[in-house]
Amino acid sequence: MAKELKDLTKRAENYSQWYNELVVKADLAEQSAVRGCMVIKPYGYAIWEKMQQQLDRMFKETGHVNAYFPLLIPKSFLSKEADHVEGFAKECAVVTHYRLKNDPEGRGVVVDPEAKLEEELIIRPTSETIIWNTYRNWIKSYRDLPILCNQWANVFRWEMRTRMFLRTAEFLWQEGHTAHATKEEAMEEAVKMLNVYADFAERYMAVPVIKGVKSANERFAGALETYTIEAMMQDGKALQSGTSHFLGQNFAKAFDVKFINRNNELEYVWATSWGVSTRLMGALIMTHSDDNGLVLPPHLAPIQVVIIPIYKSAEQLDEINRRVAPMVEKFRNMGISVKYDNADNKRPGFKFADYELKGVPVRLALGARDLENGTIELMRRDTLEKETLPIEGIEEHVKALLEEIQTNIYRKALALRESKTTTADTYEEFKEKIEQGGFILAHWDGTPETEEKIKEETKATIRCIPLDGDKTPGKCMVTGRPSAQRVIFARNY
Amino acid sequence: MAKELKDLTKRAENYSQWYNELVVKADLAEQSAVRGCMVIKPYGYAIWEKMQQQLDRMFKETGHVNAYFPLLIPKSFLSKEADHVEGFAKECAVVTHYRLKNDPEGRGVVVDPEAKLEEELIIRPTSETIIWNTYRNWIKSYRDLPILCNQWANVFRWEMRTRMFLRTAEFLWQEGHTAHATKEEAMEEAVKMLNVYADFAERYMAVPVIKGVKSANERFAGALETYTIEAMMQDGKALQSGTSHFLGQNFAKAFDVKFINRNNELEYVWATSWGVSTRLMGALIMTHSDDNGLVLPPHLAPIQVVIIPIYKSAEQLDEINRRVAPMVEKFRNMGISVKYDNADNKRPGFKFADYELKGVPVRLALGARDLENGTIELMRRDTLEKETLPIEGIEEHVKALLEEIQTNIYRKALALRESKTTTADTYEEFKEKIEQGGFILAHWDGTPETEEKIKEETKATIRCIPLDGDKTPGKCMVTGRPSAQRVIFARNY
Repeated sequence: MAKELKDLTKRAENYSQWYNELVVKADLAEQSAVRGCMVIKPYGYAIWEKMQQQLDRMFKETGHVNAYFPLLIPKSFLSKEADHVEGFAKECAVVTHYRLKNDPEGRGVVVDPEAKLEEELIIRPTSETIIWNTYRNWIKSYRDLPILCNQWANVFRWEMRTRMFLRTAEFLWQEGHTAHATKEEAMEEAVKMLNVYADFAERYMAVPVIKGVKSANERFAGALETYTIEAMMQDGKALQSGTSHFLGQNFAKAFDVKFINRNNELEYVWATSWGVSTRLMGALIMTHSDDNGLVLPPHLAPIQVVIIPIYKSAEQLDEINRRVAPMVEKFRNMGISVKYDNADNKRPGFKFADYELKGVPVRLALGARDLENGTIELMRRDTLEKETLPIEGIEEHVKALLEEIQTNIYRKALALRESKTTTADTYEEFKEKIEQGGFILAHWDGTPETEEKIKEETKATIRCIPLDGDKTPGKCMVTGRPSAQRVIFARNY
Repeated sequence: MAKELKDLTKRAENYSQWYNELVVKADLAEQSAVRGCMVIKPYGYAIWEKMQQQLDRMFKETGHVNAYFPLLIPKSFLSKEADHVEGFAKECAVVTHYRLKNDPEGRGVVVDPEAKLEEELIIRPTSETIIWNTYRNWIKSYRDLPILCNQWANVFRWEMRTRMFLRTAEFLWQEGHTAHATKEEAMEEAVKMLNVYADFAERYMAVPVIKGVKSANERFAGALETYTIEAMMQDGKALQSGTSHFLGQNFAKAFDVKFINRNNELEYVWATSWGVSTRLMGALIMTHSDDNGLVLPPHLAPIQVVIIPIYKSAEQLDEINRRVAPMVEKFRNMGISVKYDNADNKRPGFKFADYELKGVPVRLALGARDLENGTIELMRRDTLEKETLPIEGIEEHVKALLEEIQTNIYRKALALRESKTTTADTYEEFKEKIEQGGFILAHWDGTPETEEKIKEETKATIRCIPLDGDKTPGKCMVTGRPSAQRVIFARNY
């Protein structure tokens, strides 16, 4: 086994370091020369593409269309929505000039002071402002509504502490921006897209999530309500995996977007926005992977099955090649993505370790003796179990096994979350339990002040007020004031 | 017919205005609040998505993988390749600060002078520099080669005169960046991708193109050779539609990217880059469309067939709905994208004009009398011919017709190009003919000075030295010096 493959830090030793190393060793991404920006390498990007394709399909099935809006936003747009500017202006990349010139002193190029912009432009941290400025011209009457646009784009937020996929200055995402004639319809849309996200996380990423509402402190800057899906990582910390916002009429008012409603009255338009990003890659990696490397859900794995020949002579390899060719074709016809790795410059042991590290769900190995016996060796990545099976019908067996692996890793993640979810009735109990990690269900009086105090004293925040949670009222663990229901506290990424 | 649909300027009156209006009226794109940047509207984006999907498939079939590199490039990177900085530094968006703050005088937000970057960052005008800086760490030995990466991204060039799709400050594109162990392999790759582009343009866009080599004046900044596909628009002007560059070892030298070759020697890596952009949308629009609006090639039309009911009563509509339902399903099963527009708030005449404007290749109209007679009315967008056909088997008829339309519009564009391609043997003849538009095949002495003189005096440039052109030598029409072959001159977009 190659040294670099064995060097992966163990989760129990240092979870955070394990993650950072895994991202690099599995060839997913690496730091770039630009502070806080990563390079997404081909293998990482192939997983992201699979996510994109599936999400895009789900958006289109729910009636959405794609469009594209400018990367740069006039500075003044940010100021138009009061909360929004507070949330986003502080961490922006600002374009001030539009030309470079040769350095008069001969040292490369310098900014041309003559080419200063009258108004600075901001690289979009999110696109509500530029999009609502555009929607003003698209919307005159209720007949123009709803508008159900999505955009796949890069965005930029000048983050101080970055980690690959989890928090980077530039990241890739999609942002849905919808416009509606009624409040009810906009609220319905926000919940619908939350459900799309939850469905995607659970069925494709195999990541169980809790759907809920954010407290005021954690709400999107400019939203009246932020819905969220929250996942638990193996170390018990929460990862916010997608958000959907009911924006009310805030952006319509800021950008003066009115329409004639069915009663022939002029009214402000209702809005939502919703997004998921390359952060989902972080959730995927941290939920399933182990000390041997990535574990990918079959529904998103760029390579679902790898086949490796074990041979001692060119004749044996020829024979194996001939046997594998129809197998590869059969897998392809079944819609299973397969790689036959008969490259001659690496030993089987190296290949085994490499595909383990890369999280390929099923590995098949075929040797000369297998050919004689009509058998094949199969290893499943999730449990690392090996078995020898008849080669006849192996394709059908693998097809069923891929589904089994998909279900199994979801169940495993769910079991972990359940084992690390607990309740606390007193603040003392809470403080003890939060040190163990995990989700804590506790009563809270609903005030930002109490939440702030808890955050300062324990580093835990309210991840969400769960939509499907127990609705029994109680008393706030800190202040003793009334609480409508338990909410989920956790430390988070 | 709705007034706005009829207002389209005719091509013969003002071709340029016709194009600008069509882009807006067909809902493809519009100007944004940011100078030189457009909003790509859902219908325009749907066409671009179809282009992307097909190109992406062709890139993957030729062994390429996608990756993602940072949007921002350190200013000093641009200076590392001498020609490159000359070509790109002059029109860059420059990020100088990373924070805004509340204006002390209470007027919105201002740039925080404390948040000035040590080194300015440039929004990528193209990514050779940041990518070759990254490749340095990926390449040690010939075993790491070739690297065949592509990136789908937005880029930014501060253009002074912009036109939607044809020349915008921000545009969407793909950029392939490959690294090779030998000069021959890199040159082969550059030609291979030129062929992929030509194949895509002709088979999917139905745009005939001429493959050729650029003269030194028109070469990409930093390339040793630039290959191009050149298309002719209906007004006889040329549109450069895609380029593929053999970069030699220029970027490897600039970023110190060396590898151990098969002879165990340290050598600089060989490179190519190649790209097409949303400019292709301009080529698509200008090649096929007419005074009634867009004409889309069936292989890229988001809606290939639209079905419109003609009815006088709710009962009639019900009956038509029932007859159309299985037709829609059959089209879908045949892989044909179909829209049944039975919206009640617009009259059939409006719908007819609207789908004509939007370039939907085939329109079917079904009325009460058709139901009685077992017929259906069909109009093909390319010729505007109408006929009444048996409804039985209409799906198969349409399927064949879509292919016929695809071929027909390609042939029409090719015939136009041929009719507007001529030769000139003297500079006098050239000057006369260039006023008529079109491609002129003429002899040229191969010097930048002569090309520059011709450009100044006639506004025509060498579009390319055609790869498949007549290789008969001759004498330069301007200087009388020897010429290896005729080259293509034209005015261009």
